[in-house]
Amino acid sequence: MTVTTVPAYAAPAPKAPLERTEIPRRELGEHDVLIDIAYAGICHSDIHQVHEEWGPALFPMVPGHEIAGTVSAVGSGVTRHQVGDRVGVGCFVDSCRECEQCLAGTEQFCTGPNGNTGTYNSVGRDGEPTYGGYSTRIVVDERYVLRIPEGIGLDVAAPLLCAGITTYSPLNRWGAGPGRKVAVVGLGGLGHMAVQIAHAMGAEVTVLSQSLRKKDDGLALGADHYYATADPETFGQLANSFDLILNTVSADLDFGAYLRLLKAGGTMVQVGAPGHPVPVQVFSLIGGNKALAGSMIGGIPETQQMLDFCAEHGIGAQVEVISADRINEAYDRVLTSDVRYRFVIDTATI
Amino acid sequence: MTVTTVPAYAAPAPKAPLERTEIPRRELGEHDVLIDIAYAGICHSDIHQVHEEWGPALFPMVPGHEIAGTVSAVGSGVTRHQVGDRVGVGCFVDSCRECEQCLAGTEQFCTGPNGNTGTYNSVGRDGEPTYGGYSTRIVVDERYVLRIPEGIGLDVAAPLLCAGITTYSPLNRWGAGPGRKVAVVGLGGLGHMAVQIAHAMGAEVTVLSQSLRKKDDGLALGADHYYATADPETFGQLANSFDLILNTVSADLDFGAYLRLLKAGGTMVQVGAPGHPVPVQVFSLIGGNKALAGSMIGGIPETQQMLDFCAEHGIGAQVEVISADRINEAYDRVLTSDVRYRFVIDTATI
Repeated sequence: MTVTTVPAYAAPAPKAPLERTEIPRRELGEHDVLIDIAYAGICHSDIHQVHEEWGPALFPMVPGHEIAGTVSAVGSGVTRHQVGDRVGVGCFVDSCRECEQCLAGTEQFCTGPNGNTGTYNSVGRDGEPTYGGYSTRIVVDERYVLRIPEGIGLDVAAPLLCAGITTYSPLNRWGAGPGRKVAVVGLGGLGHMAVQIAHAMGAEVTVLSQSLRKKDDGLALGADHYYATADPETFGQLANSFDLILNTVSADLDFGAYLRLLKAGGTMVQVGAPGHPVPVQVFSLIGGNKALAGSMIGGIPETQQMLDFCAEHGIGAQVEVISADRINEAYDRVLTSDVRYRFVIDTATI
Repeated sequence: MTVTTVPAYAAPAPKAPLERTEIPRRELGEHDVLIDIAYAGICHSDIHQVHEEWGPALFPMVPGHEIAGTVSAVGSGVTRHQVGDRVGVGCFVDSCRECEQCLAGTEQFCTGPNGNTGTYNSVGRDGEPTYGGYSTRIVVDERYVLRIPEGIGLDVAAPLLCAGITTYSPLNRWGAGPGRKVAVVGLGGLGHMAVQIAHAMGAEVTVLSQSLRKKDDGLALGADHYYATADPETFGQLANSFDLILNTVSADLDFGAYLRLLKAGGTMVQVGAPGHPVPVQVFSLIGGNKALAGSMIGGIPETQQMLDFCAEHGIGAQVEVISADRINEAYDRVLTSDVRYRFVIDTATI
């Protein structure tokens, strides 16, 4: 297959700093879209994979699954997108298209052979490794390319492709909306999206953060209340308060303490997780018809719905745009939570 | 307050055998219903409380919260029931009536002072201890009295007031119905109700039991499939199969193994629980938008809905009717799971 070579930032080996390199992109197939990438967000999971913390990974690795750009060419059979369209690509670029999950539009849970194809650190159906958004161009089957509506900047749209859908999907499924009290645990890359989205859905939003350090930000993003979880009074004060708790924190938490903050019938949804099993007292679920749930990104239809919702409500990520030569520095800062709230790479600087 | 004295079976002290005695029943108040009890089911939780396994309890204790009988008198203000009506009483006989939960008809989670009033082993608003259904008569506020429709025997209806609603409520909430695959873990007092109800709701029902010993019963009750969990092949064979798993077993289970049996988006609901925390790998929830939920009996409106549903579909418990002098023997047999599937006391023998 003919390929084009494009510049990119890659980690040549596990844990190695990212450096400028060139990578192949496949020739445009019948159903492919060529995207000139404008911005690529930096997600904590990029770092996990570069560090090989999620199992053996493929190197060189070009991370990046929060991609926003413009269509610059389309294959002969493409019907969904045209040249000039503003588009995005998220965490996967292909799937089997035939299993129950793919047919239901929940391709993130594709049960076909090998599951879906990750945007990077994966192997495509052509047998070639996939490379992500820290690059200037990418070729993606039209079915896995999202429309980014007018009225939302490509820089602030890029993180919606992962951080946006990761929080929108559970808020949507578990009924954040008018008359509902929603708590967001953690105000980072995910949490700052969750606050904006839950607020726009009409819910009464409370941030539960370790300290009050980011309280002004939280309120400005749309939170109605803000509590420090380090304050021992918080848990007594908020007992039986929430219909929904969205936990964006991967660190160990006392689940029992958070479950007690739910009203009867409430749900706590995890979008992050500690790597080891956590003890759960099942009676804390039974005594109140409560649920402990997990949620992982979203399928293509729901991701499009999220982008349309964000555009309609003027929601984007709060971003710090960086040049590509600052990626390694940004990684260090993500690890110390020193970002408000998402780094986005200006790919023109690659 | 004037009282009447009625015969009952009571445990005089923790862990003591039950014996015949006399207990007081309050005089009929304005909104009270006097019920001539016909049958009272024996629930495992009766034994837990007699054995004081759920914390300090009140003695003498008259257990019984699966009560079916006939109205023999009503207070002057009673509008919902009349003399001769076939009625039932479940796990609680009063609640604050003012909190968000009571107003929503989920009185089992009453957040008023002291919560709801248990049918026994509790203290009523008059300051007197409550006594349950192992007795010939009971006085209950009309609001907490259910109608038992014609066409369903009082003996097979009694266990619906706890075992029926305990399984109906989660099947109802979590969407058992046509096109849905539901697994019921355990075929005991709860499980045998769950199979009948899920089948009547239109779901495809699978029983997961330790062995195939009760397979014929399970299929006769409406199960489409029956697997032994002791067979190591079961878990591989059924991976990714179910929309809903209803776990009626209180023993320790490997939650991870059961969560893997759920399809993406599926829910595992616990109606029983081990007394200690169980380890849960949160990634097993995230990787598939799964939920681990709990469920506890049901409110008055849903309990009535369940009774109507069971009558419409000809569903009752499979019961072994016993005379009152066999209660202690029945307790021993419940503890060794030697009952298919619920003991019911004929209160005429008290």
